[in-house]
Amino acid sequence: MGKDVEVGGGFSAKDYQDPPPAPLIDGEELTQWSLYRAVIAEFIATLLFLYITVLTVIGYKSQTDVSKNADGCGGVGVLGIAWAFGGMIFVLVYCTAGISGGHINPAVTFGLFLARKVSLVRAIFYIVAQCLGAICGCGLVKAFQKSYYTNYGGGANELADGFSKGTGLGAEIIGTFVLVYTVFSATDPKRNARDSHVPVLAPLPIGFAVFMVHLATIPITGTGINPARSFGAAVMYNKEKAWDDHWIFWAGPFIGAAIAALYHQYVLRAAAVKALGSFRSSSNI
Amino acid sequence: MGKDVEVGGGFSAKDYQDPPPAPLIDGEELTQWSLYRAVIAEFIATLLFLYITVLTVIGYKSQTDVSKNADGCGGVGVLGIAWAFGGMIFVLVYCTAGISGGHINPAVTFGLFLARKVSLVRAIFYIVAQCLGAICGCGLVKAFQKSYYTNYGGGANELADGFSKGTGLGAEIIGTFVLVYTVFSATDPKRNARDSHVPVLAPLPIGFAVFMVHLATIPITGTGINPARSFGAAVMYNKEKAWDDHWIFWAGPFIGAAIAALYHQYVLRAAAVKALGSFRSSSNI
Amino acid sequence: MGKDVEVGGGFSAKDYQDPPPAPLIDGEELTQWSLYRAVIAEFIATLLFLYITVLTVIGYKSQTDVSKNADGCGGVGVLGIAWAFGGMIFVLVYCTAGISGGHINPAVTFGLFLARKVSLVRAIFYIVAQCLGAICGCGLVKAFQKSYYTNYGGGANELADGFSKGTGLGAEIIGTFVLVYTVFSATDPKRNARDSHVPVLAPLPIGFAVFMVHLATIPITGTGINPARSFGAAVMYNKEKAWDDHWIFWAGPFIGAAIAALYHQYVLRAAAVKALGSFRSSSNI
Amino acid sequence: MGKDVEVGGGFSAKDYQDPPPAPLIDGEELTQWSLYRAVIAEFIATLLFLYITVLTVIGYKSQTDVSKNADGCGGVGVLGIAWAFGGMIFVLVYCTAGISGGHINPAVTFGLFLARKVSLVRAIFYIVAQCLGAICGCGLVKAFQKSYYTNYGGGANELADGFSKGTGLGAEIIGTFVLVYTVFSATDPKRNARDSHVPVLAPLPIGFAVFMVHLATIPITGTGINPARSFGAAVMYNKEKAWDDHWIFWAGPFIGAAIAALYHQYVLRAAAVKALGSFRSSSNI
Repeated sequence: MGKDVEVGGGFSAKDYQDPPPAPLIDGEELTQWSLYRAVIAEFIATLLFLYITVLTVIGYKSQTDVSKNADGCGGVGVLGIAWAFGGMIFVLVYCTAGISGGHINPAVTFGLFLARKVSLVRAIFYIVAQCLGAICGCGLVKAFQKSYYTNYGGGANELADGFSKGTGLGAEIIGTFVLVYTVFSATDPKRNARDSHVPVLAPLPIGFAVFMVHLATIPITGTGINPARSFGAAVMYNKEKAWDDHWIFWAGPFIGAAIAALYHQYVLRAAAVKALGSFRSSSNI
Repeated sequence: MGKDVEVGGGFSAKDYQDPPPAPLIDGEELTQWSLYRAVIAEFIATLLFLYITVLTVIGYKSQTDVSKNADGCGGVGVLGIAWAFGGMIFVLVYCTAGISGGHINPAVTFGLFLARKVSLVRAIFYIVAQCLGAICGCGLVKAFQKSYYTNYGGGANELADGFSKGTGLGAEIIGTFVLVYTVFSATDPKRNARDSHVPVLAPLPIGFAVFMVHLATIPITGTGINPARSFGAAVMYNKEKAWDDHWIFWAGPFIGAAIAALYHQYVLRAAAVKALGSFRSSSNI
Repeated sequence: MGKDVEVGGGFSAKDYQDPPPAPLIDGEELTQWSLYRAVIAEFIATLLFLYITVLTVIGYKSQTDVSKNADGCGGVGVLGIAWAFGGMIFVLVYCTAGISGGHINPAVTFGLFLARKVSLVRAIFYIVAQCLGAICGCGLVKAFQKSYYTNYGGGANELADGFSKGTGLGAEIIGTFVLVYTVFSATDPKRNARDSHVPVLAPLPIGFAVFMVHLATIPITGTGINPARSFGAAVMYNKEKAWDDHWIFWAGPFIGAAIAALYHQYVLRAAAVKALGSFRSSSNI
Repeated sequence: MGKDVEVGGGFSAKDYQDPPPAPLIDGEELTQWSLYRAVIAEFIATLLFLYITVLTVIGYKSQTDVSKNADGCGGVGVLGIAWAFGGMIFVLVYCTAGISGGHINPAVTFGLFLARKVSLVRAIFYIVAQCLGAICGCGLVKAFQKSYYTNYGGGANELADGFSKGTGLGAEIIGTFVLVYTVFSATDPKRNARDSHVPVLAPLPIGFAVFMVHLATIPITGTGINPARSFGAAVMYNKEKAWDDHWIFWAGPFIGAAIAALYHQYVLRAAAVKALGSFRSSSNI
């Protein structure tokens, strides 16, 4: 439905419109305020993300606790929880896109690092900031909802009963693939960007991807697809069960992000170089 | 509310802005990587579409199974299922529009083929890739949800009790008409595209059309409007009941797509040629 | 949050960017195919609007009928019904905006006629087409859902118990005001349209306005704010109760649309002319 | 994900693209019709905001009152209420952005005043208009829903049982921070506005921010984050309980808005001036 023709891609022969690959370590970057500003923005955004979403989870569980409250239908539901995660990503990516690129997720940062869109230094700074932000966000919820926070699971990701570790890992890999694939599609430099719908309101499909994955996998793992989110909740909840399967919520998202980066760079973009001539003449619906 | 004036339309006298009709068989297309890349993108997109949506359906049914779980209101609801289908189409059309045109649905491919927007070769490649992708997506859900997949109907489309085959066929025809009509409206080449809201974020109304049709027809057929979705689920579920009425989920969508293509080409666009002069002077709200 | 400065407005001294007022009767218009094409598009769009929305209403009521089905939470809910109305308006305004202006509602047509944006002839043609389309859409639902259609109220608008006629009329007036005010805001010709978010995806806020009004007034009148929708449902349901208060669903929307047209033309736009000079120098947040 | 590079910021050394700070008192502004038109638009918009949202709250509570109605799941749910608040802000910001800037909230006006985007005179006019509009909107709901309005709490903000005043204040501060931070991000003058997704459909993320905060904090305070909304509901409900903690719903939003203004001006924008040179050469993902 788009009619934009892509050219370029691949590390060796990028089109002039593709920015050059980010260096692994960029000394000059460390002297720039824009890096530190971006790190602060990632910290604040991840803090707000966890604060709003975990508060929604705890609020929902307290509203519908039949042992205390007759109104089992009174809460926002699993649908409301999925909206909270997806909607906050939409809002926060929109707000931070111009400052930090709007990652708010170590898996996204890792995928963009693999595609050489951010430097190693920036990636490490971002991931640390995201994890600290997530811990602080969950800490705020714990402070506000003392009585309920621990009772209702602290918003921590755990493998639901009846699912194997392999299933949980698979669900996290595919879920993160959906998210990072959407991020790559939304941020792909296009030659005819102005005629294309792609760069317009890119945060919306990214938020919807998060919403969709939550609808599908909340019953399996509670849906991580964001190691900072899983880590922050686990640190604050700090029960054995939350730590037992915690590796799944790092390994799954990082593997999924890596596959999405490979799919985008080697299948969708890089190969384009080889067929450059044919593109210009193709109708390419 | 738009102020764009359309000209052209019809096969014989297309405006210069309309691309020429795609050839039925385009030998050169077969030598281009962009075709194979597009086929891969359709395969992956349909796989992800079925994976997320059928997992949502199965997860919802297991959450709200009163024989196992007291919380009948705990799941995402029919509203959440409708969001899963519509939202995934939004995300995936957004992601694949620049690569394959973002069909993800044999009925859409068929409609665009009838309107001569894709070649016969490309249409066949796409439909095969979509069906294989749907089978793989449902296979993943079956692997992840072994115990529940078959018990909860495998996300297969079946005619609900109390509805005749004619009603089911009618519901599929009209539902697919809504979808394919929206696709044609969203991708119509406009003369003043830049002043128009039409090409901006076209995937959003397409996703909403899918969402709307699911709200209305889930109680009747479970909502197909996508033969690949119905076929993939039927192959993996593979019970007699899912195959009995399976023809409805191919015939209905293809008839609906054909009517939408005719409506768009002969009522909304083609006739415009005859009245070309009058258009330029009309205020055309 | 916008920085566009408006000029012009008012009938007597329109800015060059405002189209001239539509003539009351435009003989030439009758000879143009674009008028008949627009009338067909309004008919089809209103048919689809009623088909999808009333089918959602009937499906919801049959799913949650506790006398037949234990799962009182199984349906799409009032929230799903509100989404069906709002979402279909979004999709259909998007699809028909370039053909007919995307009214799909006699109250919108009436408001735009009062503001001299459509001719009298076009307004009458549109309203007749909308009413016929609504009757056909409800007829399809009746045919598909024979057993349930009459039992579950046929999607007809009725005043709920405990509300006076005055309250119902007031709810319809304010609800239609919200809708038509949004339509005027979304279609206002702006001088710096390109820098403004206003013309981008105008159908989305229009659809949301319909969604919002349904959330608020479904408990009072079932929410009309569209005389064609109320009329089509009443014709097909054809019970005395649906006709008793039917005048409310014509008077309310027409009064609300008239107030919105006056508010937009005389408060927000027309007065601008008097202060034309001051505008150019104002920062005008 | 954006690639826009910001320059300027700070009061002393604004980039040429930043408008100059609004004067505290601007005598000339008082002579302009555009100010009074903007005040009327704020009044009407806040009236409609309260009318639709409080009507949704009351309607939901009457639908699901188990003492009268067996269908505890029949209403729009807390999710529907959150949509009503967020969706109305989206629609009304869209409609009034070009007239008044689309504040509809004294906390937003206060934040923009602190950032010197509106004059003191305009801020005071707006806040008075917003409070009067909110009172009238709640008055309409009271008139329409006489029997239910007082029984069901009148949509007034109250601290839920089990939460301290400090928690309520904190929830309002952070919630308003999320909203006003989004407003600043959406309205930030960008150098390359045309290449950026930021100014496109800015009302949508603002509406979503309101939606998100309601999902999270309805169980704690009922969610104010808008002193006019809290004040209007308290005036019309006028029970002691609504007034007891009323200060929270002014102090919290104003503190949150001030922090957001400081964060935006001193962390995200102002500091940019110091590093102006480095920006031009940075890749700035």
